[in-house]
Amino acid sequence: MSNMGYTFVIFGASGDLTSRKLIPALYNLYRKGRLGDDLAVYGVSRSEFSDDDWRTSLKETTAKFAGARFHEDAWNEFAQHVFYIAADATKTEEMVSLKAQLDEKEADAARTRIYYLSMSPKLYEQTICNMGVAGMSDESDGARRIVIEKPFGTDLATSQQLNHCAHQVFQEDQIYRIDHYLGKETVQNLMVLRFANSIFEPIWNRNYVDHVQITVAEEVVIGRRAGYYDHSGILRDMFQNHILQLMTITAMEAPAKYEANSVRDEKVKVLKSVRPISPDQIGNETVRAQYMGYLKEEGVPKGSQTATFAALRLCIDNWRWQGVPFYLRSGKGLSCRTSQIVVQFRQPPHLLFNRKRALESNRLVIQIQPNEGIQLHFQTKVPDAGMEMRLTDLDFRFDSEFSGSMPEAYERLLLDAAEGDPGLFARSDEVELAWSIIDPIIAGWASKSAPRLYWYETGSWGPKESTDWMYSQGREWFDVCPVLK
Amino acid sequence: MSNMGYTFVIFGASGDLTSRKLIPALYNLYRKGRLGDDLAVYGVSRSEFSDDDWRTSLKETTAKFAGARFHEDAWNEFAQHVFYIAADATKTEEMVSLKAQLDEKEADAARTRIYYLSMSPKLYEQTICNMGVAGMSDESDGARRIVIEKPFGTDLATSQQLNHCAHQVFQEDQIYRIDHYLGKETVQNLMVLRFANSIFEPIWNRNYVDHVQITVAEEVVIGRRAGYYDHSGILRDMFQNHILQLMTITAMEAPAKYEANSVRDEKVKVLKSVRPISPDQIGNETVRAQYMGYLKEEGVPKGSQTATFAALRLCIDNWRWQGVPFYLRSGKGLSCRTSQIVVQFRQPPHLLFNRKRALESNRLVIQIQPNEGIQLHFQTKVPDAGMEMRLTDLDFRFDSEFSGSMPEAYERLLLDAAEGDPGLFARSDEVELAWSIIDPIIAGWASKSAPRLYWYETGSWGPKESTDWMYSQGREWFDVCPVLK
Repeated sequence: MSNMGYTFVIFGASGDLTSRKLIPALYNLYRKGRLGDDLAVYGVSRSEFSDDDWRTSLKETTAKFAGARFHEDAWNEFAQHVFYIAADATKTEEMVSLKAQLDEKEADAARTRIYYLSMSPKLYEQTICNMGVAGMSDESDGARRIVIEKPFGTDLATSQQLNHCAHQVFQEDQIYRIDHYLGKETVQNLMVLRFANSIFEPIWNRNYVDHVQITVAEEVVIGRRAGYYDHSGILRDMFQNHILQLMTITAMEAPAKYEANSVRDEKVKVLKSVRPISPDQIGNETVRAQYMGYLKEEGVPKGSQTATFAALRLCIDNWRWQGVPFYLRSGKGLSCRTSQIVVQFRQPPHLLFNRKRALESNRLVIQIQPNEGIQLHFQTKVPDAGMEMRLTDLDFRFDSEFSGSMPEAYERLLLDAAEGDPGLFARSDEVELAWSIIDPIIAGWASKSAPRLYWYETGSWGPKESTDWMYSQGREWFDVCPVLK
Repeated sequence: MSNMGYTFVIFGASGDLTSRKLIPALYNLYRKGRLGDDLAVYGVSRSEFSDDDWRTSLKETTAKFAGARFHEDAWNEFAQHVFYIAADATKTEEMVSLKAQLDEKEADAARTRIYYLSMSPKLYEQTICNMGVAGMSDESDGARRIVIEKPFGTDLATSQQLNHCAHQVFQEDQIYRIDHYLGKETVQNLMVLRFANSIFEPIWNRNYVDHVQITVAEEVVIGRRAGYYDHSGILRDMFQNHILQLMTITAMEAPAKYEANSVRDEKVKVLKSVRPISPDQIGNETVRAQYMGYLKEEGVPKGSQTATFAALRLCIDNWRWQGVPFYLRSGKGLSCRTSQIVVQFRQPPHLLFNRKRALESNRLVIQIQPNEGIQLHFQTKVPDAGMEMRLTDLDFRFDSEFSGSMPEAYERLLLDAAEGDPGLFARSDEVELAWSIIDPIIAGWASKSAPRLYWYETGSWGPKESTDWMYSQGREWFDVCPVLK
């Protein structure tokens, strides 16, 4: 850890993310001594607040969101490091004034300063531009980094434009595009699982894997977020970022080193290998659907065709994965909240034991959330006479193994941003390549030859057509909610 | 199941095995309806007993050894099928008379008759010879099978002689040489694990496996069995049978079918591939030791050099296992009772993550008894910042998965003998090949150039020299007692 102090400047201080995630994460990091004593957290937004007002409000929300980790004494100590500055980041002169205030408060020491964009994405470009005018990327008094929340653009063109804008002011190595999925322990563990063990990598390829399923299911419906959601839809909301990230980590080659650019180079190689879905194949390679009742949600335009569920089949054209489909699926209003990666292995080449029905093949289930863990499904003998078998599992749970010590994704990511490790953040080429995979599907769904929009009941695993689509390929979705043991 | 009735004739009816294992197993099989209603169990030994006396005595012992599975009503029903005949099996005329009595009692039906030799092994040959004279292997009135308890000879020559004797009277397919280890669910499951799953077989070879350890540890010391044990020693008592059986099942190729002779052909191929230990290598390839206090046990001859602990390194010279040592170890008076197979995988070829110390490699631990189960040890990320790893395990336990339904090994084996499936019994060539592996070691240990006999304290994992021997090869024993969760 650096001996210099850290300054976090949160733009969008009055927003939901700040109170739910950022402040609780900073509080926890501080409490654990990870950020040292020389810490300053500035909230910035247009509303007028005193430091004390903001602290009082945050105390309440942190007590709620940090749960058992909240201790009044620790909070009161942390709160001394929390300040509020009212400013409109889209106004150049106010940004200049903000910069002056920060510099004045911190005149005596070289510090690492992390700007966190947690405001409406529409304001990103203007804010970054103003930071440029105010000279806020200049590193002569210490490192300056900018963390940019998703969504990073709404398509390839806008993401390129935002990258271009950011690069006008910041160097790529100062820019931290956050995808909180990458901060999850189970996602990081996926790399450990693959590359710190000798037994998985030999079978992690087309010779042994039949296909891969990645499901990010939400039980919630859109609630009051129609304004955002109806424009975004499931592909922008979940696939371009979280799901493609999970896919790249599952599919990537071993990097030369565990080091930010080596890892991201390998992820980029996967994205470059994804076979583009041509317009005439959209109907075969994708399923889109909307939950019943979506059209009645407050703020949803009449007759909206926005998908709240999608299933895609992507092919990765490289040596390792040729012929192994990656099935990606996400939806709102599904049976349960679960994010999981299922590596489905092939059948044994020869069935030694006489059996009336085919054996279920092995699978490795990586449960990202909730109830983080790994299960290896394998055939075992049913005790007693004969040679009956059944699929059972080798089971590992993070929470029983490391009880109570699972940190929130944002803790990890904020600390990495402070310490200058961009390994768990998306690079500009990664973001743009991900859009280039998703854009043609969005376009296909908006075209005249779009596949039908199916319907599904909330509390299901999506439309019947999604199940049928898998069956027609001789496969089956792993529709299993995590058991909370 | 055959519709014909079953008759079990137990020679050595007054012995320990009969009351501890055979009768409780037959009782359980009967209670579960596996043997039908038309069952007769005859106990034969020299002592005079009435049927009722024997039943009374067995009721008490079965209540003790069958535990929660004992129910008085079920026992009383079963007991109606249990009879006693006093006869000295080593006397020809008494065997002829026994045969006549059995035939008379069962004159009305064709039945499958299973003779079980549970008497002193010294009496086997005379008994089998008398059975020949009495015409007891003749199958014109139904199948006739003979189950022979271990030890099957005391070396290659005596086992050949016993096989020769048995073959004079019975066909090989009528002879069931029992090794109760093969009746254990976890041992049978080893074949399912390997051949009904696609993920283990690809890494089950010299490319991925560093070595294999098989440990059969007993906590008990010899007690009052010095008379037998001091002549036998650990190699005859444990290695020639149980441990070599575990090794063959771990190492064998997939048979064409799961069928008795196909499986046994593959096991024989493994035994034939074991590299003989030459006399001058005995000191390098084996460790022998005696627990402190052995010489004070009642009946142990002064200055006995009998080993109560042995560790061997065997090499299997075939395509799959070249260069992968199999370490076999067993002893009395060790830290705990455990039988386990450890498949120790190699290090990952490249260490991606910066680490101060080397990673522990993956291992698959197959826990045969007690607490039957499988653990796959793998590296996982320690939650929190950084990339610290630790070895943890994917865990499967038979008892939690199939609670209360784990049958005793003898149940399975008695039923297989009744139904005529010899798959879990040793064939004559298997037994002889196993002796041909063990004999040279016994001879080497008895020779002038024998390696030193080391000492170890009871409650340890054997002599320090065993640990050092492994260390000197860059390896380590997996000295872990099963956790009874």
